[in-house]
Amino acid sequence: MLLDPQFRTAETDALWSPAARLRRMLAFEGALALAQAELGLLDPGAAQAVAGLCADLQATELQAGDALDADALFAEAATAGNPAIPFVRALTRAAAARSPAAADAVHLGATSQDVLDTATMLALADALDLVRAELSAAADAAARLAARHADTPIAGRTLLQQATPVTFGYKAAVWAAALDRAAEGAARAGDQAAVQLGGAVGTLPAFGARGADLRAALARRLGLADPGLCWHVLRDRVFAAGTALALACGAAAKVARDVQLLMQAEVAEAAEGQAEGKGGSSAMPHKRNPVDTLVPVAAAQAASGLLAALAPSLAAEHERPAGAWHAEWLVLPQLSTLAHAAARAVRRALDGLEVDPAAMARNLDAHRGLLAAEALASALSPALGRARAKELVERLARRARDEGAHLRALAEAEDEIRAALPPAALDRVFSHADAVEAAAAEARRILAARPAQARHQDRS
Amino acid sequence: MLLDPQFRTAETDALWSPAARLRRMLAFEGALALAQAELGLLDPGAAQAVAGLCADLQATELQAGDALDADALFAEAATAGNPAIPFVRALTRAAAARSPAAADAVHLGATSQDVLDTATMLALADALDLVRAELSAAADAAARLAARHADTPIAGRTLLQQATPVTFGYKAAVWAAALDRAAEGAARAGDQAAVQLGGAVGTLPAFGARGADLRAALARRLGLADPGLCWHVLRDRVFAAGTALALACGAAAKVARDVQLLMQAEVAEAAEGQAEGKGGSSAMPHKRNPVDTLVPVAAAQAASGLLAALAPSLAAEHERPAGAWHAEWLVLPQLSTLAHAAARAVRRALDGLEVDPAAMARNLDAHRGLLAAEALASALSPALGRARAKELVERLARRARDEGAHLRALAEAEDEIRAALPPAALDRVFSHADAVEAAAAEARRILAARPAQARHQDRS
Amino acid sequence: MLLDPQFRTAETDALWSPAARLRRMLAFEGALALAQAELGLLDPGAAQAVAGLCADLQATELQAGDALDADALFAEAATAGNPAIPFVRALTRAAAARSPAAADAVHLGATSQDVLDTATMLALADALDLVRAELSAAADAAARLAARHADTPIAGRTLLQQATPVTFGYKAAVWAAALDRAAEGAARAGDQAAVQLGGAVGTLPAFGARGADLRAALARRLGLADPGLCWHVLRDRVFAAGTALALACGAAAKVARDVQLLMQAEVAEAAEGQAEGKGGSSAMPHKRNPVDTLVPVAAAQAASGLLAALAPSLAAEHERPAGAWHAEWLVLPQLSTLAHAAARAVRRALDGLEVDPAAMARNLDAHRGLLAAEALASALSPALGRARAKELVERLARRARDEGAHLRALAEAEDEIRAALPPAALDRVFSHADAVEAAAAEARRILAARPAQARHQDRS
Amino acid sequence: MLLDPQFRTAETDALWSPAARLRRMLAFEGALALAQAELGLLDPGAAQAVAGLCADLQATELQAGDALDADALFAEAATAGNPAIPFVRALTRAAAARSPAAADAVHLGATSQDVLDTATMLALADALDLVRAELSAAADAAARLAARHADTPIAGRTLLQQATPVTFGYKAAVWAAALDRAAEGAARAGDQAAVQLGGAVGTLPAFGARGADLRAALARRLGLADPGLCWHVLRDRVFAAGTALALACGAAAKVARDVQLLMQAEVAEAAEGQAEGKGGSSAMPHKRNPVDTLVPVAAAQAASGLLAALAPSLAAEHERPAGAWHAEWLVLPQLSTLAHAAARAVRRALDGLEVDPAAMARNLDAHRGLLAAEALASALSPALGRARAKELVERLARRARDEGAHLRALAEAEDEIRAALPPAALDRVFSHADAVEAAAAEARRILAARPAQARHQDRS
Repeated sequence: MLLDPQFRTAETDALWSPAARLRRMLAFEGALALAQAELGLLDPGAAQAVAGLCADLQATELQAGDALDADALFAEAATAGNPAIPFVRALTRAAAARSPAAADAVHLGATSQDVLDTATMLALADALDLVRAELSAAADAAARLAARHADTPIAGRTLLQQATPVTFGYKAAVWAAALDRAAEGAARAGDQAAVQLGGAVGTLPAFGARGADLRAALARRLGLADPGLCWHVLRDRVFAAGTALALACGAAAKVARDVQLLMQAEVAEAAEGQAEGKGGSSAMPHKRNPVDTLVPVAAAQAASGLLAALAPSLAAEHERPAGAWHAEWLVLPQLSTLAHAAARAVRRALDGLEVDPAAMARNLDAHRGLLAAEALASALSPALGRARAKELVERLARRARDEGAHLRALAEAEDEIRAALPPAALDRVFSHADAVEAAAAEARRILAARPAQARHQDRS
Repeated sequence: MLLDPQFRTAETDALWSPAARLRRMLAFEGALALAQAELGLLDPGAAQAVAGLCADLQATELQAGDALDADALFAEAATAGNPAIPFVRALTRAAAARSPAAADAVHLGATSQDVLDTATMLALADALDLVRAELSAAADAAARLAARHADTPIAGRTLLQQATPVTFGYKAAVWAAALDRAAEGAARAGDQAAVQLGGAVGTLPAFGARGADLRAALARRLGLADPGLCWHVLRDRVFAAGTALALACGAAAKVARDVQLLMQAEVAEAAEGQAEGKGGSSAMPHKRNPVDTLVPVAAAQAASGLLAALAPSLAAEHERPAGAWHAEWLVLPQLSTLAHAAARAVRRALDGLEVDPAAMARNLDAHRGLLAAEALASALSPALGRARAKELVERLARRARDEGAHLRALAEAEDEIRAALPPAALDRVFSHADAVEAAAAEARRILAARPAQARHQDRS
Repeated sequence: MLLDPQFRTAETDALWSPAARLRRMLAFEGALALAQAELGLLDPGAAQAVAGLCADLQATELQAGDALDADALFAEAATAGNPAIPFVRALTRAAAARSPAAADAVHLGATSQDVLDTATMLALADALDLVRAELSAAADAAARLAARHADTPIAGRTLLQQATPVTFGYKAAVWAAALDRAAEGAARAGDQAAVQLGGAVGTLPAFGARGADLRAALARRLGLADPGLCWHVLRDRVFAAGTALALACGAAAKVARDVQLLMQAEVAEAAEGQAEGKGGSSAMPHKRNPVDTLVPVAAAQAASGLLAALAPSLAAEHERPAGAWHAEWLVLPQLSTLAHAAARAVRRALDGLEVDPAAMARNLDAHRGLLAAEALASALSPALGRARAKELVERLARRARDEGAHLRALAEAEDEIRAALPPAALDRVFSHADAVEAAAAEARRILAARPAQARHQDRS
Repeated sequence: MLLDPQFRTAETDALWSPAARLRRMLAFEGALALAQAELGLLDPGAAQAVAGLCADLQATELQAGDALDADALFAEAATAGNPAIPFVRALTRAAAARSPAAADAVHLGATSQDVLDTATMLALADALDLVRAELSAAADAAARLAARHADTPIAGRTLLQQATPVTFGYKAAVWAAALDRAAEGAARAGDQAAVQLGGAVGTLPAFGARGADLRAALARRLGLADPGLCWHVLRDRVFAAGTALALACGAAAKVARDVQLLMQAEVAEAAEGQAEGKGGSSAMPHKRNPVDTLVPVAAAQAASGLLAALAPSLAAEHERPAGAWHAEWLVLPQLSTLAHAAARAVRRALDGLEVDPAAMARNLDAHRGLLAAEALASALSPALGRARAKELVERLARRARDEGAHLRALAEAEDEIRAALPPAALDRVFSHADAVEAAAAEARRILAARPAQARHQDRS
């Protein structure tokens, strides 16, 4: 068990199972034969036979007893060097049982890397789509929180210190933006998922002048992008998928970490929803531990390192590298699994998030008016000049902190301030009205600017 | 000296100098004041005074004795927490010497992170453009090699083994594609370089409903993208710049590593150009060491790790993180420096590359015809069926290897082959004609598909 | 399937299976109860009941139908936050079926992290021992090659260029040293594997003044080191295990990469052993691809990134981190699996390595005597002075390269050289005798200095 | 400016300056000549001349106008491939000005990598010692806090939630342990700093059977370890230094992050000391931002990635790698600089730490007695049995949370509890006496077990 269950999902387990991998390899071989026939490069009957065989095999369990046994094939790969070699051998054998022409038509002109890279791209396209959907759903959940709490004041916090007020809706709108942007990144990377076809060294000599056409036809059949050339050693597409998945983990972790910080007993402004058996502690009956938010935080930490494990594959030597390609096999299933689990966990955390506006207000007020210091200085600037206003407020703020007095009381005791600001203006300053209005407006603006698809899903 | 000179360039040294950093901060403050005046948020006279001051200061050396001293300001940052705080203080002081209104207008409504992030983005935009230009020039050099050697046969090599023939032009065309794609990545990331403006907590309360307009106006003035919201804690743009720079290093390393492998004494098909004092060895007068190609290989290794150092900043807590933001400062100057040095070094290597077609031909022929084995099997397939053709050729290939005989001689001794293939067909097989023609055609296709700008630069 | 089979081993699959994990958790709980009884902190009968139950359960399959079901427990962890919570619940239930006193005695005073960290350390100790043994066996194989080929000349290669001669035995002795040093690193890290016991927050309040004694007693029972304090947030031991595993991957990759480079068709001095179905290519019957050596190269690439994924856990916040601890769960099983697979693969490569001394001699001689240039200059120095000798040899070396002449012929044509060196001395220079003797002596010295255990295993 | 000033120190700036690098190279060459003379491998007069020259040059500024110009030499390295080549050339020229014998004796039998690696090791030894000293001083500061606050109650926090009480002294003792362990790691890595001497390919042919003796003699003269063999491609020592430096960053970050979390306005239990101009905010006069603690957090993030940049160098190909060696040059100066700056910053934070025991007590009490829940259950267990005690307390804890009542009041209202526990026992439970005593005892035990050297420094 290389990843504990909370860092996996049923979907990604299914996506990367040996049988699923083999099914994608069969999809490649079937589509390749049909594309060749379409361009007149292969006898249509033979192509149909291969494609039919592949379709038939895809419908089996691909386990011991079936014509192809996924576990056995991948085990053979350890000796052969890669799983495509035993796979092509077994598929050719199965084709020979149908007809010699079918056997001759299997994997024609292709190389191991063609089928393995294409199968990986099919998987990555699916993985990126799963991640995108989960991120969008999480963004929708954040957007719902943002809409509901657009006007709920909360302390803005910079460098882990209270700064000036925002609203919880603004905070949640930023979460939605983080998740939406990561979802767009996943979608963009998914659009780049391309077919691989180059033959032994990338040049497709078996097809004369038709190589590029065949690649395009194969891409169409598999629903992948046509890369326009063989990318055996041009790994930027794989790298782009990896960075999109790491971005997904990072965006989920941003939200999750914020929630963990808000859950702290001393802050207690929001909390993961409760459920039977969730987040308890056998020893400490009062504890309410974060559970869902642990996943993105840990996944993002791992994903950062996995990027460093993936990037060296960009420097793939000659026409196929001896190790850099294989390292991708180690990274991609895991990175996509972590990204999906992280996105799902953060969606769960947001869907069930318990929000406590009273606690937010209480914490905002706990500082004896100090969070209004900036607003007070701004309000005084027209009358006193900015420098004098700032100097005055800084002095009062220091006294408020040192003497434990409320900044408003100190302000009201100053003649210079009383002369400059009527009580209503002071009310406004200490109600944080400008800050709250600005944050609320910004939250609504961010929500209105969400990508169309995301908004649509939100309505559905 | 944190990076040895070969891993830096004059341009990136200039880009990240303390004075250059300060100049970009001044550009921000000047543009901010003017944008505020443009929207009626600031008195035009005060705005002009601030902008004029910033322009005047930008024209000084920004060293001890000038109104702003870059080294001193950055040294103060260690106590203040960031360089913007002493910078704004010093700038305000300088403005006060012009007029109180000017002093009041400095940095109005902005926060440290606004000026620092915007300055970083201006630097990254320049860095990405430098990298893009250097990658494109390197791609042009590769394209020239590809055009010149489109038909020059060379062994294609997979898993560090000779596979089937390609042409050196094809190999160089793939290099051009790698570099072009990285250049496009740099350009795309540069287009994302956006202005930062959010005020203390991202919501710009000082500007009421005009915050978003102000951000847009500021972006126009600075030639940066308008992000549409404050991205203090949405670090995907920074991450995108980092991945583009790592991609640049990776693409350069792909080419560099290939050249190093071709330079091996036993291969000797290509070599870095010679120059007085270059690549020698004091002890070994015969040595001709790689020099330029060391840079991208080492830079890519470092860049992979730097990505792992950058990615955690995606999870920036609350409204400004306590450490994750600062870690970006450590990574970005270095990553952009390495990428530029790597791109430049690979351009130099390609510009001066010495190519030895005779050695390529010799190595191709050193295997007693074995590289034609696949072509022989293909040529025999129509007559013998693919399975029989393959079986026959495998047997002969094994004998060729074990007995040291030439595959063609063994093939000619086989009745079955003589019956299937006339001597002219065998000539064609062992001349690698199909493989060479396919590679040449593919090289020309890749060159024809190069991005317009790249092709244009190639002609210039 | 997160790692393809060649990157796993049967031993590490077994080590990290859900059932094996659960067995180690049971070992902790049994030993904890007995240690408490030993110190008089628990009724001996209750302790025996718990320990007996744990032993009984360890002997079951721990699958559906058994009292504890590993898969089910780990699935519950996704909700509970960690697998210890459902595990303790289930174990307590099973104990209650034996006696109330037994139920009361389960997991007494301990916390989830105690049992999970201890179980991880038991696993890491085993993993490090597996890795150590495999590295030592690989080192033994390298040492055998070194002893056999101590005097076999081969080109020393620096910066991928031929430098001066060494012997293949020297090269293999350096491989042995790399593997031995990594084995020692694994052993050292294994010795640091320590028990974890701290209770809820690290202070073991349940045991009054006896906490430290209990930890020590538990360590003795489990065969782990006594850490002397609770290390819930002192993760340097885990980091040390991680770096030892990454070092194992790196050492294996050093050897594997050398073998890959020696296998290049143009070098062909050594090759992985052949086996039915190994390293073939369906399309290219002449190919003999590396297979075993791919594994360490890819594993080391991944391991470098996994270190970056592990190191942030050093900064574990407060008394237990919310994510950093969980990230270790993602990294450690994988890193240990990759290290074992890499060590095993390199051992296989070395055990079967085919060495071609004739090819080594041929490549050494291919440079028209240039590899003797340094030796020639040294031999001339006493007579001519070092500067003059070097100058003269450099000139001749340049001519040899440019004119295709042999350096010896050119040297013999120089009066100055003839006067300084008799023919026998020239013979010696161009036989590389000094270089070969030095390399052979160094190879034997390195072998003689191998760690005792390693030498012993070599004899066995 | 690749690293902002707060991430550097005067000491590490000096350590890695071009002149300092050159001085270490001169130290190598001087010691090499003397060691050769000592073994009779070189004329004593010539050796003295070289050593004298090196000593003389070390005493110059090594800038333009001096016999060796550090900046110029490093600039030449970009063409030559490494700085040793122009350095040896310039040093030989300077020696020739003294005597031909001196010129002949320069760098005799050594290679570029010998002088560069040895110079790096001298630097790393110093860097590790700087880091060790700073970590030990920080540990001393933590130990002083631990001693002073051994009995000061504070909430223990796991998963960012309040768990059971510890004391602030315990927390600080764990900090001391983290820093002490990192200091020991730095010392251990420093002890491994070894001389490099192998000649062109590692075998030292120039010295016949005396190579190993010469290496040992050179090591003695330079105060470095004798590695027993040439480690041109055995990079584990470099890797060990890198991991020790990353560990230093991690330990510093653990402490720094804890302080940041304690500084949160809602927690406010401890804070970085104040200073003029430190941690202010121009806009928000009330803010008191973390400054010192930002450095270790950011440095640790960067260091994790730098490890991934360093580890691939373990797989150094053949007898000297073409890039992997050079990548170390990029990583080591930076990693040592960050580690020293991080250790210093955390020492500063601890030296000036403001501790608020009243706030600690307040936060501990804010939970209506819930933090005593575990202690209450333990106290009830003898009378009620553990299961019943736990069940009862869980029910009361839930009511306390839901109803806002104090757990003690609820407990006192339960007949079953009143019967089991006299009021004095309840007093003890809700005073957290057991937890506090256990934590205090553990704090004192950890302090007593600190390494001797550390304790000694504490006394001084």
